[in-house]
Amino acid sequence: MNVPERFMQSWKQRFPHLPSGQCHVLLAVSGGIDSVVLAHLLHIASINFTILHCNFGLRGQESIRDEEFVRSLGQQFQVPVWVQPFNTVQWAQQHKMAIQEAARVLRYNWFAQMAREKEAAGPVAIATAHHANDNIETLLMNFFRGTGIQGLHGIQPMQGNLIRPLLFATREEIVQYAAQHGLQWVEDSSNASEKYTRNYFRLQLIPALKNIFPAVEDNLLHNIERFNEVEMLYTQAVTQQLAKLVEHKGNEIHIPIFKLLKTEPMHTLLWEIIRPCQFTAAQVEEVKKLMYTGHNGSYIASPTHRIIKNRNWLIIAPAVTETAKHVVVEQQGSVVVFKEGTLLTALQVAQPAEAETQNSPLVAMLDAKDIEFPLLLRPWKQGDYFYPLGMQKKKKINRFLIDQKLSATDKEKVWVLEMNQKIIWIVGRRIDNRFKVKPATQNVLICTYQPIG
Amino acid sequence: MNVPERFMQSWKQRFPHLPSGQCHVLLAVSGGIDSVVLAHLLHIASINFTILHCNFGLRGQESIRDEEFVRSLGQQFQVPVWVQPFNTVQWAQQHKMAIQEAARVLRYNWFAQMAREKEAAGPVAIATAHHANDNIETLLMNFFRGTGIQGLHGIQPMQGNLIRPLLFATREEIVQYAAQHGLQWVEDSSNASEKYTRNYFRLQLIPALKNIFPAVEDNLLHNIERFNEVEMLYTQAVTQQLAKLVEHKGNEIHIPIFKLLKTEPMHTLLWEIIRPCQFTAAQVEEVKKLMYTGHNGSYIASPTHRIIKNRNWLIIAPAVTETAKHVVVEQQGSVVVFKEGTLLTALQVAQPAEAETQNSPLVAMLDAKDIEFPLLLRPWKQGDYFYPLGMQKKKKINRFLIDQKLSATDKEKVWVLEMNQKIIWIVGRRIDNRFKVKPATQNVLICTYQPIG
Repeated sequence: MNVPERFMQSWKQRFPHLPSGQCHVLLAVSGGIDSVVLAHLLHIASINFTILHCNFGLRGQESIRDEEFVRSLGQQFQVPVWVQPFNTVQWAQQHKMAIQEAARVLRYNWFAQMAREKEAAGPVAIATAHHANDNIETLLMNFFRGTGIQGLHGIQPMQGNLIRPLLFATREEIVQYAAQHGLQWVEDSSNASEKYTRNYFRLQLIPALKNIFPAVEDNLLHNIERFNEVEMLYTQAVTQQLAKLVEHKGNEIHIPIFKLLKTEPMHTLLWEIIRPCQFTAAQVEEVKKLMYTGHNGSYIASPTHRIIKNRNWLIIAPAVTETAKHVVVEQQGSVVVFKEGTLLTALQVAQPAEAETQNSPLVAMLDAKDIEFPLLLRPWKQGDYFYPLGMQKKKKINRFLIDQKLSATDKEKVWVLEMNQKIIWIVGRRIDNRFKVKPATQNVLICTYQPIG
Repeated sequence: MNVPERFMQSWKQRFPHLPSGQCHVLLAVSGGIDSVVLAHLLHIASINFTILHCNFGLRGQESIRDEEFVRSLGQQFQVPVWVQPFNTVQWAQQHKMAIQEAARVLRYNWFAQMAREKEAAGPVAIATAHHANDNIETLLMNFFRGTGIQGLHGIQPMQGNLIRPLLFATREEIVQYAAQHGLQWVEDSSNASEKYTRNYFRLQLIPALKNIFPAVEDNLLHNIERFNEVEMLYTQAVTQQLAKLVEHKGNEIHIPIFKLLKTEPMHTLLWEIIRPCQFTAAQVEEVKKLMYTGHNGSYIASPTHRIIKNRNWLIIAPAVTETAKHVVVEQQGSVVVFKEGTLLTALQVAQPAEAETQNSPLVAMLDAKDIEFPLLLRPWKQGDYFYPLGMQKKKKINRFLIDQKLSATDKEKVWVLEMNQKIIWIVGRRIDNRFKVKPATQNVLICTYQPIG
């Protein structure tokens, strides 16, 4: 089969929801050989398309040349050309991103927006011109950088409304095709971050490997197919194991440690639990340490979540944002993450002489019958007062903190636990006398504060 | 930690069943640097060991030199040395194997035998001196040759009583260690089949990759750890899916096609079903074709098995050996594979005018009430007779075959189906008149013959 025949075969097989006469393709065209060849293939397959071109303004005169070339391509194929200029450098600075990453985000955001505008008219897809060698290079890049199974599935032919119809073709076939059809294209002189690596793969690694493994390119492409199916089975097993292991409570994930210790393979399953919460692969070892030897209430943080050890459980909870002014403690047994640390609450039957055993300001022991949930955790404010443990008279919290010789900045970090406008606990410092454990106390509510860091 | 400390740590972690003072190690020593370093490490860790050395007699004077060197090593460490000479070339010819593969088989067979002899005295293990870079090279070799997940788990630290205690160390560390301790070793000038590839990895590929991915060796070693766990999860999912999909009946595996079509991912699961029966990965596509478009009774063969399409089922059955003189057909619904092809039997309610619809000599339609299982399938022999369909008189089979104008060699390929010493069917040619479908027949036993090839 020649290239256009294989193109159509692969199209029908991979995109049955996009019949050639009845869909519209938004084709990302840089002006390079790959996107020009894909435009030509769409054209001769009579698939309707619009050319999308991003001008990132990163290469001066060359960017202008490329834009003009892409406009001429539109005239040649008699299709519309949409061009979007970006102030990439400024946007990258604003969003603290590397230029290449910023360009990628801008590009795909714009594509998605254009797709939404076209959607009403019928099936629409965004197409990029990735080919088989891009796929091999991505595989090798991930493999040498270190990866789990997810890094071995290569470039997906379809993700949502994004399609890669040229994945069936090798770079060599694309070059031949362009020559056969006398196609013109522009060369990109930019020094994209991965370009050096890809060139090394293309010009040195693959040719050298071919001396030893003549079919290495086909072998790697077949690997990708197989690893895709391995990943499906992997995902099936992970999903099933996690369903048995973790409990979702509101926006928290609770993991019983005794069960986790018995799961096989623990390391990978732990990773799959914490991965969606923006933890890194390296933090799996930290979580294991937390589980084996961590103190009650200690935790590990990601940009968005914390994993807290709470007795025989690991609890994953969203971290509150810096600006959160108060947190509601819904019920006992819950774990609350706030700006200054973590608060755990737990119910326990009273022990004789309970009150005396309390030897840490980080632990508050309260008479459970006096406490009604929900409680409110918030920074103290001017005007707050409470009855300090051991005193019958109320005292302004400001006064109390001054007596404790806290600096102004330390005072700012003090939070209180409140119930019905009564303060129960100056967190980590002193409980209110009204809520203390008494000789008649039957159940004790234990609140544990684990300061940040 | 230095090398001996890491050696002990890795030993305790990986081989808790082999406490250093109470086990015996049979150490495979070629005389090369890796095995000499491992001997030294066992020695200073006070782990009892015996040196095992194979003399494959493949390198003339050098083989003799190596044997003498290994014997001197035994004196140095004051441990026994067992040497086994092999006539490798002759053995390889006899067993139609490549020399390197023959040496591998001879070596591991001898190790296993030595281990059995030592077993009575306490925990025993066979140790080889594979190191971290061997592991990386094996990974790369499999990856570039093309592999499923099984090719990514690298060299296993333990397989049965075989252990690899040096996997924690890199080649560089081993060389340094040998230099530090003034160790001597012999260089192997042999041209092992993989040596060229391993040298390319070591001297060119890895150094070049390090320019781009400085931690590539560590990355690949971590990949191996992760892929081991991925493989565990993969195996969990495969096991579970296959338990729901396939039915084991005696030594046959039955797969309902309608269920197989709904499994996800089908290709890999099909591969996992047929792999243990010595089918190749490439045959998965053939099995799919068999399933979609194959005729009833057609099949695909491996050296040991056949996959037969039987209506809505795929059936995997052991292939009978060339010398099998007869096959027992245990029950209806079974599939029998014999030297000349495959025989399927199935029961069906009689249709009006059933007998007339039989228009292929490959299908026998018999009155089920006349048939008692088991039946016997065997080559015809001199003296056999039957009542050919449509005749009331018996006829010698030899005569029948001559009348059919069969050549001598074709006559040798004729088999018969027999019940209680009565012949029911000259397979693929003519049924016996006594067993034919009659107007009163209620159920029809349909026997289908699919000739080989």
